[in-house]
Amino acid sequence: MRLATIRRDDGTTSACVATTERAIPLPYSDIGELLRIPDWRDLATDAVQRCDDAFTVDPRDFAPVIASAQKIVCCGHNYRTHIVEMGRSTPEFPTLFTKFADTLAGANDTIEVRSDAKELDWEVELGVVVGSTLSQADSHAAHRAIAGYTVANDLSVRSWQHRTSQWFQGKAFDATTPLGPVLVTPDACDPGAGLRVTCSVNGVVHQSASTEDLLFDPATLLAYISSFTTLRAGDVVLTGTPGGVGASATPPVYLVDGDDVNAEIEGIGQLRNIIRISRPALAASAS
Amino acid sequence: MRLATIRRDDGTTSACVATTERAIPLPYSDIGELLRIPDWRDLATDAVQRCDDAFTVDPRDFAPVIASAQKIVCCGHNYRTHIVEMGRSTPEFPTLFTKFADTLAGANDTIEVRSDAKELDWEVELGVVVGSTLSQADSHAAHRAIAGYTVANDLSVRSWQHRTSQWFQGKAFDATTPLGPVLVTPDACDPGAGLRVTCSVNGVVHQSASTEDLLFDPATLLAYISSFTTLRAGDVVLTGTPGGVGASATPPVYLVDGDDVNAEIEGIGQLRNIIRISRPALAASAS
Repeated sequence: MRLATIRRDDGTTSACVATTERAIPLPYSDIGELLRIPDWRDLATDAVQRCDDAFTVDPRDFAPVIASAQKIVCCGHNYRTHIVEMGRSTPEFPTLFTKFADTLAGANDTIEVRSDAKELDWEVELGVVVGSTLSQADSHAAHRAIAGYTVANDLSVRSWQHRTSQWFQGKAFDATTPLGPVLVTPDACDPGAGLRVTCSVNGVVHQSASTEDLLFDPATLLAYISSFTTLRAGDVVLTGTPGGVGASATPPVYLVDGDDVNAEIEGIGQLRNIIRISRPALAASAS
Repeated sequence: MRLATIRRDDGTTSACVATTERAIPLPYSDIGELLRIPDWRDLATDAVQRCDDAFTVDPRDFAPVIASAQKIVCCGHNYRTHIVEMGRSTPEFPTLFTKFADTLAGANDTIEVRSDAKELDWEVELGVVVGSTLSQADSHAAHRAIAGYTVANDLSVRSWQHRTSQWFQGKAFDATTPLGPVLVTPDACDPGAGLRVTCSVNGVVHQSASTEDLLFDPATLLAYISSFTTLRAGDVVLTGTPGGVGASATPPVYLVDGDDVNAEIEGIGQLRNIIRISRPALAASAS
């Protein structure tokens, strides 16, 4: 099953079951709210069978698939090949930081960043969405609590990320992390079997890896996080990015105004975002 | 004016105006919800004048003053004398990380931590509560948007904080950051004039500083954060801790089962928390 949060003409959003090019609305404002209903699978299945108010979806209609996430926990340094190529030793513990719901953006939104937020970089990531409450869970319980998988592009303002030792401020610019386009339930998607994760800029592939290469797999990450804080339905865990980010190129390459960034995971979907760098008002010269 | 979130006998919480040993309830579940009402000052003033259902408050009744915070942003390395004593250079930018609402605890709650969360340390901090929406604000606008001030003890699990480069996991154990007991509005409390900030353990003072010594003052911090993410009524900013934490002692000193931790800011109030270290079930020998 594929679920999406879709922007409607009246300015609201609807949790929807996504079929090919159409969406069947459910009476919830986003997939996070839907997942907090215990029998959400039955509700979604019933809606598909009725299918009486399906509507056509434009790519710009995709809101962040979880718009209302209370907790977004992100992992760094999590692809084995990338750890090796960077000459790092294998970490014993996941490196974790957070984002706010305000940081999320829609799957095909234009990403606007001010010109003083220099060194904007791409990071395609597998997103894991929690489907039920987890506290001090083992990895088996954590696996069962996964509602589904999605795609994120953790667009990072490297100049702010490295202003201090803590990455948060470079990872938290409003509306800079596209998340979606859909959540795919585990019966239709198995990252453990190896899904191809890619990111390209203007058609040139920079990142390409398999989710098999994850050091801390989704269930292990959820279990670890649940050992210190309770995870609940609609919370999101981003599992880290593979090698090939702009900062690791020689010389580094960063995103510029007009760049077309495509982050994709096999079997889930793609995020396609145009970058818009806003200029200071006083520097309104020829672009 | 002093505001508190109080636990009621029916298991709910109420936003209240706090007078000496009594509370006057308002029809909101916590101070965060109250602050999202544009005319909250008038509502609170009217309630005090009516004062018809005031009730007595037990110390254990104080819930986290903002129980529903969407954003909790914390600053590290922010007291000048502590930066100097540690031999660090003055930072150009604030070091920022985050907490979740689940991390908060009541002002007088027992703080329970598992025995594998080693090296539990104290960090008294001035908390700043946002009263209206701030986006790309200057420090004057940020100053006007401050709803009030409170006290936090950012109890930190150092062994987890330093497992990786990112501090988050050592700062995010559920129910380990007491916040309260009250929010004091700016007309009754001015950190810029210098408020004494202290933390003692079993009556021994370990931290003592003045809020005058803050490198990034509350308005500067709010303005900086608002430059990349929108702050809204009920969001919380913790302004960092002064010197004297257990980790910086020679040898380091950490909290143990039964310790009585008292974090206090002059003119606001005090947090008094007993530490309870839970032992693994299989090691249930004589304590």
